[in-house]
Amino acid sequence: MESLDAIFKPKSIAIIGATVRPGSLGREMINNLFNFGFNGMIFPVNPRYEYIHSTKAYPTVLSIPDPVDLAVVVVPKEHVLMAAEDCGRKGVKGLVIITAGFKEVGGEGIEREEQLVAIAKKYGMRMIGPNCMGVIASPPDVRMNATFAPGVPKRGSLAFMTQSGALGVAIILTAKKLNLGFSYFASVGNKADVSAIDLLQYWENDEYTGVIGLYLESFDNPTKFAELSKRITKSKPIVAVKSGTSEAGARAASSHTGSLAGLEVAADAVLRQCGVIRVSSIERLIDVVVGFSHAPLPKGDRVAIVTNAGGPAIMAADCVVSQGLAITELSQETRDRLAAILPAEASVNNPVDMISGAGPKEYHDCLDIVLGDPAVDIVIPIFVPPLMIEPLEVMRTITDVGRRHDKLVLAVLMAEEKYFDLMPQAVENAVPYYRFPESAAEVAAAMFRHYNWRSIPAGDVVTFDVDKKTALDILQAKHKSGGGYLSPDEVDSVLRAYGFAVCRHAIVPLGGDLAAAAKEVGYPLVLKVEGESIVHKSDIGGVEIDIEDEEDLLEARQRMEANVGSAGLFQHVTGYFVQEMARPGKEVILGVKQDHKFGPVLMFGMGGKYVEIIRDIAFRVMPVTDLDARQMIQEINSYPLLEGVRGEVRVDIEFIVESIQRLAQLVSDSELIAELDMNPVIVHPERGDCRVVDARIRVNGGG
Amino acid sequence: MESLDAIFKPKSIAIIGATVRPGSLGREMINNLFNFGFNGMIFPVNPRYEYIHSTKAYPTVLSIPDPVDLAVVVVPKEHVLMAAEDCGRKGVKGLVIITAGFKEVGGEGIEREEQLVAIAKKYGMRMIGPNCMGVIASPPDVRMNATFAPGVPKRGSLAFMTQSGALGVAIILTAKKLNLGFSYFASVGNKADVSAIDLLQYWENDEYTGVIGLYLESFDNPTKFAELSKRITKSKPIVAVKSGTSEAGARAASSHTGSLAGLEVAADAVLRQCGVIRVSSIERLIDVVVGFSHAPLPKGDRVAIVTNAGGPAIMAADCVVSQGLAITELSQETRDRLAAILPAEASVNNPVDMISGAGPKEYHDCLDIVLGDPAVDIVIPIFVPPLMIEPLEVMRTITDVGRRHDKLVLAVLMAEEKYFDLMPQAVENAVPYYRFPESAAEVAAAMFRHYNWRSIPAGDVVTFDVDKKTALDILQAKHKSGGGYLSPDEVDSVLRAYGFAVCRHAIVPLGGDLAAAAKEVGYPLVLKVEGESIVHKSDIGGVEIDIEDEEDLLEARQRMEANVGSAGLFQHVTGYFVQEMARPGKEVILGVKQDHKFGPVLMFGMGGKYVEIIRDIAFRVMPVTDLDARQMIQEINSYPLLEGVRGEVRVDIEFIVESIQRLAQLVSDSELIAELDMNPVIVHPERGDCRVVDARIRVNGGG
Repeated sequence: MESLDAIFKPKSIAIIGATVRPGSLGREMINNLFNFGFNGMIFPVNPRYEYIHSTKAYPTVLSIPDPVDLAVVVVPKEHVLMAAEDCGRKGVKGLVIITAGFKEVGGEGIEREEQLVAIAKKYGMRMIGPNCMGVIASPPDVRMNATFAPGVPKRGSLAFMTQSGALGVAIILTAKKLNLGFSYFASVGNKADVSAIDLLQYWENDEYTGVIGLYLESFDNPTKFAELSKRITKSKPIVAVKSGTSEAGARAASSHTGSLAGLEVAADAVLRQCGVIRVSSIERLIDVVVGFSHAPLPKGDRVAIVTNAGGPAIMAADCVVSQGLAITELSQETRDRLAAILPAEASVNNPVDMISGAGPKEYHDCLDIVLGDPAVDIVIPIFVPPLMIEPLEVMRTITDVGRRHDKLVLAVLMAEEKYFDLMPQAVENAVPYYRFPESAAEVAAAMFRHYNWRSIPAGDVVTFDVDKKTALDILQAKHKSGGGYLSPDEVDSVLRAYGFAVCRHAIVPLGGDLAAAAKEVGYPLVLKVEGESIVHKSDIGGVEIDIEDEEDLLEARQRMEANVGSAGLFQHVTGYFVQEMARPGKEVILGVKQDHKFGPVLMFGMGGKYVEIIRDIAFRVMPVTDLDARQMIQEINSYPLLEGVRGEVRVDIEFIVESIQRLAQLVSDSELIAELDMNPVIVHPERGDCRVVDARIRVNGGG
Repeated sequence: MESLDAIFKPKSIAIIGATVRPGSLGREMINNLFNFGFNGMIFPVNPRYEYIHSTKAYPTVLSIPDPVDLAVVVVPKEHVLMAAEDCGRKGVKGLVIITAGFKEVGGEGIEREEQLVAIAKKYGMRMIGPNCMGVIASPPDVRMNATFAPGVPKRGSLAFMTQSGALGVAIILTAKKLNLGFSYFASVGNKADVSAIDLLQYWENDEYTGVIGLYLESFDNPTKFAELSKRITKSKPIVAVKSGTSEAGARAASSHTGSLAGLEVAADAVLRQCGVIRVSSIERLIDVVVGFSHAPLPKGDRVAIVTNAGGPAIMAADCVVSQGLAITELSQETRDRLAAILPAEASVNNPVDMISGAGPKEYHDCLDIVLGDPAVDIVIPIFVPPLMIEPLEVMRTITDVGRRHDKLVLAVLMAEEKYFDLMPQAVENAVPYYRFPESAAEVAAAMFRHYNWRSIPAGDVVTFDVDKKTALDILQAKHKSGGGYLSPDEVDSVLRAYGFAVCRHAIVPLGGDLAAAAKEVGYPLVLKVEGESIVHKSDIGGVEIDIEDEEDLLEARQRMEANVGSAGLFQHVTGYFVQEMARPGKEVILGVKQDHKFGPVLMFGMGGKYVEIIRDIAFRVMPVTDLDARQMIQEINSYPLLEGVRGEVRVDIEFIVESIQRLAQLVSDSELIAELDMNPVIVHPERGDCRVVDARIRVNGGG
């Protein structure tokens, strides 16, 4: 038996704090449990009553003669620890602590929560909450509604976890209106014990759960979350509302390049990388989940719209296109068949406009024809009820025809509210239906993305043959000496050890053989004056580029010495830095930044001086597979620039894919790298011409 | 009397095609008219009945003894022309043609519509439709509901125009649920006569109309629309759903730079430039209109959130920030006062979390304190009903306190549907309330944008002193010779005549004094070989840049002659093109393209080779004021680059503002310019350094 079974499959439940006071938590909770038809025994616990809800009540959980699997605790916060201790002694295996007043209020609440966790641990009890609104488990052999949400929730295939009790109630209410049912529901509150990770694991192979919904405010363990959800989404969709972006908004506004890889982008990267469908609101989450719960996945992106009104069809088509799906072209045969049954005023091109006289028969016949067209993957039937035509009849027809084909049908019903109230009873097993065309289009797009995600392989983490020791020695040494930025020479060595195409260079001490070193590096060259205390080298004439040959080189040195001399800095010069000059090309940036929560966050984007302004950057968290690396590159808006536009040749994308993976390998080999930027990396069609031109590495202090 | 008064203020109405058949248009229409309490006489017209709806019926409109102002026509399409003719002879002044089967069905329908328009014109009748769902006018002395939408619409201050009858029904249904009332409603159908322009004019100074809503599929007269709406939005908000973007999606995908200024961007530019609030869906339109109708405009962007639940407040804060508003910092005094009345577990920082025990008293007192804080412009109270607290009581309190302050209050009520059904009756004059926090945040942002728009001046169209004749002569000549691209010399002359800072240049014939010409233009220089049949000049070594002095120049000529000679093209050389070499700087693009519907569409953005990929461009239609020009520049994402980032100096923004206005002047002086691109225009901190480096002008053919 899994440890969460005590919570989600109890045979007996004690309600500690049950009462008969109307409107109280203890009363609502026990009512809900009875009304949902719990398949086991319910024991009210409250010393002040002899019976509650016609059921014998017990003064404490210890006085219950039968075994108790789960205790739901709604007593005032001062009594929670005692109740939990009693539960432990009784041999209870699961706790749901509804009571608030713990970590979320700070001060003594934090202490109280720690004590609660200690009690649960001592007795081996799993615990949901505290400060939560309860759990639902709808499998037929359980049928438990241990929440205080109003009404009886519908049973279905959605397992939902929420970090906010209030939004949990909203979800239950909205779901009911749209005929959406739950397999499980868990309001996790302070997550003192059971977290999103536990629930994902529990629901992964659960036979009653077809789709998982999450309202997340934070990730407890992003790496574990990523690993799990990446696996689960290959068979079950996960739809998430992730809030808490505004803090990140503030961070992103910071002027430092490193901050580009902030909290929000990391959260977004985790979800994207794991195939989790992120939505912007609870409303949209419900819309999307209804799609997944009540309809098959589309096998392509080609949408047909069948309507009785022009305006809504135009809006639907707009939204379909803006969501990245295609408005399909119907075959000649389909159009001929439609023309044969529709009036002359109708349009048989997509969107098919049957005009406002269309009733159940037209919806039936036209949908059947359009669904039979091999060029159609998704159909959005739109119905705006005219007089004389019964909306429920049309919806029944759409469902009948829709269910006969294995294609995605998402209906739009632009009708009075009363029809939405009637739909759940009136049309059995209805295809998903929405109030507005935008919803249907967005749901179709989400479902197609999920279909795509499932069809691509998981990707591999590739390991290259590198000189790990050299790199780690340098990082370790810097770490021990207090951390900070590596010197250019150290950066060069670390990157070279991991196989990056760093520009060749040499450092020549004053009086050394500059010409020989230059010949070794190879022309054309960049020459820089060396000297730790000379900071703004180019300002004082200490940098020369485009040095073509030895003559240029020696002239440049002469000019440089004069410049540095007249700046009064000659005594600080320790030598010369000679660097291969990369051929001008497309500039990209590759970087990584440690996030205290997400670990290393990798970034790739268009590079150069304006990277912060253009912000055309993709992010990933670890582990980064070959597929992730490739998708990062394809994800940026400027990707066409790399593929080659206006007659240009494609740059070596494989080189970038490999560089991203090498960077991932480097940061997973050493957690000492706080921040690493390679900007610009100049890329060319030929791999041999690609170069890391400038880079910096900051190392954590310590040692 | 205005001509539309016959439609919106009739004293008597004939319903031609009225019937008693349940569910028919003719029956619904007459029922709706009676139920809304029309303040005048209703005459059913149908030869088959003696009376309809207990009212004497007439065989034709001609047999009605009293005068008839308006006729609503619901007869089958074959009888419409006859009915209209009768109306004309009767002296009817307004027609609402519900019947479909006209232009929208093509073929004979087009002809039928032309005949209908001719009849209306002959008798001076104004006409709405055909193919529409009717009109509503709710002023107390009219009270006309001549639509077949179900139910009785509420009276209010929204005047709404829709091009889609189906979406019109959806609007009426949705509005009713949210307690939103109409002053007028017009479904314009095929717009054979009355258009959006007519209605905007009619509603502009109407005392019953506070906000105008539009569902647009197309603009009939964008210039007139722009002029009108720009004026109206300075006193009344206009909220529009503009659909039909997907066609533009396809156009935007085209690879030609010119297509950047396509249909969709033009539509978007018109709306933006005129202060029209564009929303993405009917749902959002209703949300925004409810805000404008039931609440005062915010006088700033500082939002406070007051909640009884954490999750929804986080979501609201996210959305507030992403909409560009600010989460305000409450004053110490405010926080102290909140702390004095809230439990210790509450949060007195913004978002103020009163925790779930908060009832009417807490909402009252906390809202009163927060609304009194001078650092607060907008308050979003969020209420998630816990047990024991009556939602309607809380909503009443929020309304009471909200109405006492002159600040924007947008409530979020995350409750069961039944409370939304009860709200209109239960809470009089309620502040706007929404189901989800996202709605409130978006509405607040729209209302703040409108407040801002009203507070800025309208802007002026500036006219510069230019050499109009020179430019127009060149354009005219090209036009007469069949149009096409102007030569570089012609482009130079046209732009110079309008005061653009074009790079100096000279054309030197073979054997001419190249050195003298070069001295005149000024070093550094670009040298290009001239010759009409030499196309890929740089490929054959016919272009040299960075020419510093006469020695460089003569060497370059020598190399060039050798190159051209070895390419076997020497006999095609006609001379040399010498051009001032612009100092490298920030590259922008300025352009204009004629759109067959919108006229000249101006564009400004970051320039260079990749303008199509980066797509950081702003658009405007004519007329372009100084303010428009400035806003175009500020609108692009790369604006910080022009302002100066990372220690760079700001470029001369005034130079760009002026250049945009000069371009607007040029295209309004001559409609012969089909397309004009200046790319790149290099801009610098000093105006004198800014240069138009490359430009092309395509002239319409004809003449």
